[in-house]
Amino acid sequence: MLEPRETMPDLARLRADVCARMDKMFEALLPLPDAPHARLYLAIRHATIGGGKRLRPLLVLLSGRLFGVSEDAALRAGLAVEAIHAHSLIHDDLPCMDDDDLRRGRPTVHRAFDEATAVLAGDSLLALAFEVLADPETHPDAAIRSELVVSLSRAAGAAGMAGGQMIDISAPALTLDLAGVTQLQRLKTGALLAWSIEAGAILGRASDSSRRALALYANCLGLIFQIADDLLDHEGEEARAGKRIGKDAAAGKQTFVSLLGAEGARQRARELLAEAVSHLAPFGAEAALLGEVAEFALTRDH
Amino acid sequence: MLEPRETMPDLARLRADVCARMDKMFEALLPLPDAPHARLYLAIRHATIGGGKRLRPLLVLLSGRLFGVSEDAALRAGLAVEAIHAHSLIHDDLPCMDDDDLRRGRPTVHRAFDEATAVLAGDSLLALAFEVLADPETHPDAAIRSELVVSLSRAAGAAGMAGGQMIDISAPALTLDLAGVTQLQRLKTGALLAWSIEAGAILGRASDSSRRALALYANCLGLIFQIADDLLDHEGEEARAGKRIGKDAAAGKQTFVSLLGAEGARQRARELLAEAVSHLAPFGAEAALLGEVAEFALTRDH
Repeated sequence: MLEPRETMPDLARLRADVCARMDKMFEALLPLPDAPHARLYLAIRHATIGGGKRLRPLLVLLSGRLFGVSEDAALRAGLAVEAIHAHSLIHDDLPCMDDDDLRRGRPTVHRAFDEATAVLAGDSLLALAFEVLADPETHPDAAIRSELVVSLSRAAGAAGMAGGQMIDISAPALTLDLAGVTQLQRLKTGALLAWSIEAGAILGRASDSSRRALALYANCLGLIFQIADDLLDHEGEEARAGKRIGKDAAAGKQTFVSLLGAEGARQRARELLAEAVSHLAPFGAEAALLGEVAEFALTRDH
Repeated sequence: MLEPRETMPDLARLRADVCARMDKMFEALLPLPDAPHARLYLAIRHATIGGGKRLRPLLVLLSGRLFGVSEDAALRAGLAVEAIHAHSLIHDDLPCMDDDDLRRGRPTVHRAFDEATAVLAGDSLLALAFEVLADPETHPDAAIRSELVVSLSRAAGAAGMAGGQMIDISAPALTLDLAGVTQLQRLKTGALLAWSIEAGAILGRASDSSRRALALYANCLGLIFQIADDLLDHEGEEARAGKRIGKDAAAGKQTFVSLLGAEGARQRARELLAEAVSHLAPFGAEAALLGEVAEFALTRDH
């Protein structure tokens, strides 16, 4: 079961540390060139530095801790998945997709710059992720680096996140049922969250049984996150979320809340939280913070 | 110097073989899923199967032959760079970039489908490239696969192709001089062409001196290609090129032709062809077809 409340500050402190490290790492990777394409770097920096929950790098770090992975290695893999997350936000916000003006309380990249620059900034971040992963600095064993690249490219591409976004933009016409909404989530947001957990296991050469248990935890976590997002979209306040909300209902999209009702969705998330924690049992106290992340996923207000 | 004309059919035959193999490989990699995101796969297939000069895979194959690289390995690396080439064409054709309706004589992806699907299809192809490269099927040595991933991600990203496209869309405002237009080409189209040559050398564990000679050849080849493109844009016929032409002048962009004049550009390309061939001298007769590719780059009519 969950750790007592007294340990929560550990997670908050760790999250703040990860946020600071991510900002520093993106800064170091993205110096402004004295060149006519400096504008592209400004757009990439706008999308990556100084914002975001940095949940995915935190997950790589916590998963990696179970297997003795160094913080540096975990955070490089974390930076790669965070780059792909930022890529997806830039492209999802485009006028031809969700057409959003605000992200993390700031103008979206195509509003702060322009659409063409936003497309290229997103593309550049996708490429950057694989450059970082495959670099020997991430791990001395090239087989591990290659495994990270293969699994992350699958999680990001047509069979993963991009496929999920394809379903999402077609969703009003598809009138998805619960299985359909679950598949959408599993691809659109679940694939990168699951990879973040898996990356720690790959870096730490975890056993197959450990990987299976973590994959089950990750599956629950992804669903909890999406249900919480749907609840925030249903109930939340725009100022708090830092982005436009209530838009799913307006777009006629099915969500966990529209299919289960707000109370039903909340109940389902609580069941998933208990299940998530149960999958962490084999790892003992070491996995307490992963349990807290699942709780945070449900109780966060943005 | 160039091989005698009698050998030209070899290159034509090889190009036809590579085209057929690429179509088959993309077919095998992109089966249509029975899922709500099948439309995304249709768009990716539209952009990758049944068209294109397949120049980049041909270059990997020819470069790899110098170092005894197997055809299968070379063509998998060739497929990766071809996927990134297709990715860039889809995104460059978008309304917010070059706004093109035709590509290879067919509707562009955003015209045949829609803009959102085109963005996602391009994203998916970028991810697919790295999945293919890092897969053990490409090469048994993971260090080689990782080196391919690092170098291709650099060639595709902000410091390479995406950066070049950023300069290109800013070009009317930048009023580039010859050095600027050369830098634009080196990034926008040269980076992927150079990687194609480099990939054969990486797969074949070529010596540093071989790599340097090939990099000099690749630099000339990229410039020849761009000058020929500018000449086609200046002189060509729309039906022949299968895409809208004359658009650079209309957009107020500097090109090799606008800066050097048509005859000056043609002369510069001939000098570069001679230089390209000179860099192949250390490889002897084995490199004859690479010389012919450089000649083809200059004399092609589309």
